[in-house]
Amino acid sequence: MKLVTYRASAEAEGRLGVIHDGMVIDVERLGRAAGSAFASTMLGLIDEGPDALAALDRALEVTESKRPVGIAVPLENVRLLAPIPRPRKNIFGIGLNYVEHVAESAKALDTSKSLPEKPIVFSKPPTSVIADGEPILHNAAMTRQLDWEVELAVIIGKRATRISKDKAMSHVFGYSVINDVSARDNRRAGQWIFSKGQDSYCPFGPAIITAEEIGNPHDLVLWLKKNGEEKQRSSTKHMLFDIPTLIADISSGITLEPGDIIATGTPAGVGAGRDPQEWMWPGDVIECGVDGIGVLRNPVVKIGD
Amino acid sequence: MKLVTYRASAEAEGRLGVIHDGMVIDVERLGRAAGSAFASTMLGLIDEGPDALAALDRALEVTESKRPVGIAVPLENVRLLAPIPRPRKNIFGIGLNYVEHVAESAKALDTSKSLPEKPIVFSKPPTSVIADGEPILHNAAMTRQLDWEVELAVIIGKRATRISKDKAMSHVFGYSVINDVSARDNRRAGQWIFSKGQDSYCPFGPAIITAEEIGNPHDLVLWLKKNGEEKQRSSTKHMLFDIPTLIADISSGITLEPGDIIATGTPAGVGAGRDPQEWMWPGDVIECGVDGIGVLRNPVVKIGD
Repeated sequence: MKLVTYRASAEAEGRLGVIHDGMVIDVERLGRAAGSAFASTMLGLIDEGPDALAALDRALEVTESKRPVGIAVPLENVRLLAPIPRPRKNIFGIGLNYVEHVAESAKALDTSKSLPEKPIVFSKPPTSVIADGEPILHNAAMTRQLDWEVELAVIIGKRATRISKDKAMSHVFGYSVINDVSARDNRRAGQWIFSKGQDSYCPFGPAIITAEEIGNPHDLVLWLKKNGEEKQRSSTKHMLFDIPTLIADISSGITLEPGDIIATGTPAGVGAGRDPQEWMWPGDVIECGVDGIGVLRNPVVKIGD
Repeated sequence: MKLVTYRASAEAEGRLGVIHDGMVIDVERLGRAAGSAFASTMLGLIDEGPDALAALDRALEVTESKRPVGIAVPLENVRLLAPIPRPRKNIFGIGLNYVEHVAESAKALDTSKSLPEKPIVFSKPPTSVIADGEPILHNAAMTRQLDWEVELAVIIGKRATRISKDKAMSHVFGYSVINDVSARDNRRAGQWIFSKGQDSYCPFGPAIITAEEIGNPHDLVLWLKKNGEEKQRSSTKHMLFDIPTLIADISSGITLEPGDIIATGTPAGVGAGRDPQEWMWPGDVIECGVDGIGVLRNPVVKIGD
């Protein structure tokens, strides 16, 4: 299932929708038509657990041929918000999780040449989240090294403390795309939250693809283009720490909750690692894609004086 | 005003209270008796802004002599939760913000000897928050270097992006105490969220003292005792980056929101910096105090095998 949070022009709040044949089907209204109480938000649906997802799937099938009027809107008539517009805690980011990116980072930045022995976890605040199409803010008074990082995002479906690797995948609700925007010149004694957590530094979306639709999340091509020119291309099979390892590792100390988001790290090809180095500037357009999941497209826009 | 979030035995949800003469006065019920709609939660009150706080203050005065029955409970009959039991984003922590702590950290850990040029920001997830009296969890399979850090916590009252230093103090709602518990052996390539963000690693409370009650937040004595023995004692006047600087700095990139929490850093005397080094172990009791604000007391309890 391809789930979105959308806003039809007249409505103030983001609502949960399913994409089907170019249409956004409103989940709560579909439920009402089918005689079921369905969630009106993404977090609401995730909280309800796997049974709610299965019920939604059945309702979509049942109403396939005779869909009630007023529950579907053409995709081009709505505005998509980030799939979870306001995460309940900071997004977990994973640093240096692709071998070649470890090498390019050690060359260009202050990180170590050796592969990390454990996942490197950092965070991006909810205030950094923007939707597909929204601007990445470029404040030249703050940074002249604004960089890109395409990543597979994992959305957690169930509360988890000290979850074992073999049970970890059952805690995944779905997948999405995140651009882990990073102001390389804004790092603070090694800490990354300020350089990676500023407003607009977490483009996220456009949709969440539920886990059952993704055969193998460790065999997905991910890529990034700046102004149409490809800068990153790799596969999630090259992750150093795979998804079960990340979930087991984080939850060994930090309780994961429904709706938590893990950005699983970026492959080689970031601006800092290029020769000569390249950065994002106002006017640029960045596209991040994970095949089978979606493409996230954001312009870079100047703010400040 | 001394504000708490409390749970009377029979009630499931935490409620907002004011401490007055050893009693917890329920804010929403006080409002009902005074004919005003007052918030029932701490975040609700903070969201309502300074006028709501002034109205609450007036209602307390008016009812001083003839307080309606049923709105006040003796403090010893309630359980205090963390003042904000579930922050809306990760708590901001500030590393190395007291000169002598910079020195002891450089000696014992992998941090730099030189004073930081800009605040070092990291974060602790909402899931790490515990209340006064709740256990700090010690999992010996994860850490053998569990350390303490008493800190003054600043609670943000107003939304702020790129706020100037001279306006920053008007964005402070109040102050509290945080123990920035840190598993020194759980750092990951310099990133601190995992070593400082595990479940129970953010004792917070017992109360929030509103800003108008604290004359000068840069002249408060803060101290920490382990099993009654003093380990840390300093004054907030020794902060390297003061509160306006921290607010201006974080908000230069990251929007601060009502209810956001900044733990402003710890002075010298942490376990890692002692000779010989000392750590927290199950059975220990840690008391953190900031004079004029309160004392936060937490036992250390074993979890895991």
